[in-house]
Amino acid sequence: MGVRFTNAYVQSPICGASRMCFYTGRYASSHGAQWNGFPLRVGEQTMGDHLRKLGMACWLIGKTHMKADAEGMARLGLSADSQIGARQAECGFDTWIRDDGLWAQGPDGFYDEKRSPYNEYLNAKGYEGENPWADYANAGVDDDQIASGWMFRNADKPANIREEDSETPWLTNETIAFMEQTKGPWCAHVSYIKPHWPYIVPAPYHNMYGKNHVPQAKRSAVERENPHPVFGAYMENKIAQAFQRDEVREKVIPAYMGLIKQCDDQLGRLLDHLEQTDTLKDTMIVLTSDHGDYLGDHWLGEKDLFHEPSVKIPMIIFDPRAQADAARGTTCDALVESVDLAATFVEAAGGEVPDHIIEGRSLLPWLRGETPDWRDYAISEYDYSATPQAVKLGLAPRDARLFMVFDGRYKLIHAEGGFRPMLFDTQTDPDEFDDLAKGDSHAEQIERLYGMLAQWGRRMSQRVTRSEQDIINMRGRSGRLGVLPFMYDGSEVPEELTQKYRGPVGQVYAKDDPDT
Amino acid sequence: MGVRFTNAYVQSPICGASRMCFYTGRYASSHGAQWNGFPLRVGEQTMGDHLRKLGMACWLIGKTHMKADAEGMARLGLSADSQIGARQAECGFDTWIRDDGLWAQGPDGFYDEKRSPYNEYLNAKGYEGENPWADYANAGVDDDQIASGWMFRNADKPANIREEDSETPWLTNETIAFMEQTKGPWCAHVSYIKPHWPYIVPAPYHNMYGKNHVPQAKRSAVERENPHPVFGAYMENKIAQAFQRDEVREKVIPAYMGLIKQCDDQLGRLLDHLEQTDTLKDTMIVLTSDHGDYLGDHWLGEKDLFHEPSVKIPMIIFDPRAQADAARGTTCDALVESVDLAATFVEAAGGEVPDHIIEGRSLLPWLRGETPDWRDYAISEYDYSATPQAVKLGLAPRDARLFMVFDGRYKLIHAEGGFRPMLFDTQTDPDEFDDLAKGDSHAEQIERLYGMLAQWGRRMSQRVTRSEQDIINMRGRSGRLGVLPFMYDGSEVPEELTQKYRGPVGQVYAKDDPDT
Repeated sequence: MGVRFTNAYVQSPICGASRMCFYTGRYASSHGAQWNGFPLRVGEQTMGDHLRKLGMACWLIGKTHMKADAEGMARLGLSADSQIGARQAECGFDTWIRDDGLWAQGPDGFYDEKRSPYNEYLNAKGYEGENPWADYANAGVDDDQIASGWMFRNADKPANIREEDSETPWLTNETIAFMEQTKGPWCAHVSYIKPHWPYIVPAPYHNMYGKNHVPQAKRSAVERENPHPVFGAYMENKIAQAFQRDEVREKVIPAYMGLIKQCDDQLGRLLDHLEQTDTLKDTMIVLTSDHGDYLGDHWLGEKDLFHEPSVKIPMIIFDPRAQADAARGTTCDALVESVDLAATFVEAAGGEVPDHIIEGRSLLPWLRGETPDWRDYAISEYDYSATPQAVKLGLAPRDARLFMVFDGRYKLIHAEGGFRPMLFDTQTDPDEFDDLAKGDSHAEQIERLYGMLAQWGRRMSQRVTRSEQDIINMRGRSGRLGVLPFMYDGSEVPEELTQKYRGPVGQVYAKDDPDT
Repeated sequence: MGVRFTNAYVQSPICGASRMCFYTGRYASSHGAQWNGFPLRVGEQTMGDHLRKLGMACWLIGKTHMKADAEGMARLGLSADSQIGARQAECGFDTWIRDDGLWAQGPDGFYDEKRSPYNEYLNAKGYEGENPWADYANAGVDDDQIASGWMFRNADKPANIREEDSETPWLTNETIAFMEQTKGPWCAHVSYIKPHWPYIVPAPYHNMYGKNHVPQAKRSAVERENPHPVFGAYMENKIAQAFQRDEVREKVIPAYMGLIKQCDDQLGRLLDHLEQTDTLKDTMIVLTSDHGDYLGDHWLGEKDLFHEPSVKIPMIIFDPRAQADAARGTTCDALVESVDLAATFVEAAGGEVPDHIIEGRSLLPWLRGETPDWRDYAISEYDYSATPQAVKLGLAPRDARLFMVFDGRYKLIHAEGGFRPMLFDTQTDPDEFDDLAKGDSHAEQIERLYGMLAQWGRRMSQRVTRSEQDIINMRGRSGRLGVLPFMYDGSEVPEELTQKYRGPVGQVYAKDDPDT
């Protein structure tokens, strides 16, 4: 129904930072919320700011991973319970429902800061206890004991919950309720937590897939030979070590596939609802993700680094309008960045993209079958300053940062902190096993990609108070406002312009004694 | 009495952008107010924010060239007449008095947006008319007619005003009144407009200097041979063409010297006041400027580009404390940037420099006679997107940007928009006549300096909501907060950590049928 973008990349392969890039349309280094739990600075503009100016509401249904800049809000006197403050605290969204889906309890409290509305739903549905998210939705049963989804061993068990009460259908219910109750043009961020860990899914999804569906891990012994130190450190982390074990992949990947299948089915419910209410024709739909998952590829688990399984995302855009018929059902191989979506939405809402704020570019031309001039490279960043890997490598927080620059064929990864780069040729080595920067070769490619990174580093990302058009309008304006300096005697300009500088003296105070 | 820094550079050789760098301690590309009249974005933190946290007030007396981010303030619901709003509108200062000193009137209104308190002072003193700033303080008399200071021809005339009523003494009066009326620790930005144009000074300063004091212009014919296109465009602007004329230099420079001498004398009044009130021993004093002035050097006038007369500034720091005795009366040749002052003030006020926000470094170690590890290069930037030069060169606003990187010897200037760079060797060519990038030589130096610029481009400038220490404290914290993922069966960790994942099942909902 739409266009599938085959080369879409996140600007940071980690939930929070990536999401802030989607929401602001800006690179992680531009908005500064570079890791989970790093607050998005107060005043940073988001999709919500841009769309509301165009008369379109902007709603959150599900996860954001946003942490409010409480200190910045206090500095500006913004209260979290004012409308402005609430939007600042929720990266620009109005909140239909927020649920970050990690209702994990430890000795210092809950990982998620806010009370989960999903837990309240479960309690109301008869699932008892303080944390039915953990005890039912994300756990199976083993001999009358809770078999926690936190343990990979339990991933093949069915979650101990009615399927229709599990997280993904619940968020679909909320989305349908939202659509039924909300009038006027809106943008809704329908943000499912799953297939995020804990990896466990209710029946019938828990055994739709089995060992026989688990693909070979994309990994090679050569990757472990003299690896880049950052890659090496990541290969030794807990999640990586877990996914290096076949029994982990064989337990988890079928559950992961079941979780995705459940999401697909729930998207089907949403599409059915749109069709039944005759609103599909008015609704643009974007399917995407905040990052991928290694699941054992490259000897890694989760995300964090820049191999394709981590940094590349699915992206399908359905635009119901006739102009989009030209490309409907096709794929597009252009280098797409997640920051492009904010720009796409602004244009779809009838606005002009404020390109002094939003760094992405509208994808609408591709949907119309056009072939616009496009970027030569995609950038992604990763700030691992708060991780055990940074500690292991002995890095100060500001040096624990990675940058990817990918030109569609070559992928360069630069690491601050004095390390060599990494380089992959995805044409000759689509699996990204051979780090070409291990040797002394490919200096020319490395230099060329570093040149792109340098150009990006000089980008204009903070001149957010003046648009390109504002500046064009300013050109030559100071004269009109009355400053007319740099004349010797006024004969340089028409007399009427200097009239204001002339006239009879009111009183003489000057003591002009050229001889002293 | 203090240390004179002989290699101090502004981060942008233009008033407004430079000042915002001083006030924020951040590069122009980091705070975004990259040219005069580009508002400093709401929420950007300044000296005022940092110092007030330490119990030190932060006051403005004079010029800032700040333009408030009215749109951003409205978006956050900040009113300019609230205390928070007023500080946002005045780059973090509390305003004792603001006067930008360009009370120029044109058909569309006044150049300065606010009513000048100086004009009110002059009216009260008997100088009549709507704009005595223009008609008296910045004008002489010629045959009973106003001889405007806007015309260089009149620069050798005495301003038609009592010396004690002219701008510089008036601001000194205000500063003394401020000191008399203000208790508690404060930082005061005493910001004289002069020796800024209009170039005219009251007696006796108007003829203290004459033609014989005017130095030869530092300019060479070789500079006009195949100049860099941006330099070429600037050499053709109005101010440059004016200062290429000997009669302009001979009129203006003696007045300029008189204006500086008047500033010196007024600084003397401030020092006298501090001595008389026995407060000099409690007062740190910094003398500096927001940029230099070509005054005909390099065929240019005013500032804008990166030759030493424009980008290098005077900087003397007097610290009364005993620790500063070690270096008192000496000079320091370290590469100092204007952003260092905000850091210096924070440390002087007893704080730790928030180096995730302030990009400069405290200069206090130099005052104590230490030789800290220091930067290898200074950066300056110039955004000329709103100028006639950008129009002439056919540049889009985002391409009309220059970057200087100076390592203490070599100075590279990069111009966006596809131009070649400029390169000077200030050791063999201290006058910066020979642009070494004109030929094909010096590729190695150019590459080396581009590497520095690239490193700077990757700097971490927006991660302002998390300090280095915050991040160090975060390391390993997610486990404590209750997320303990990536276990196969829990045997990987002590049993008490997984206790929360165990327990008897309340009710069984799971339908586990492994055969279906």
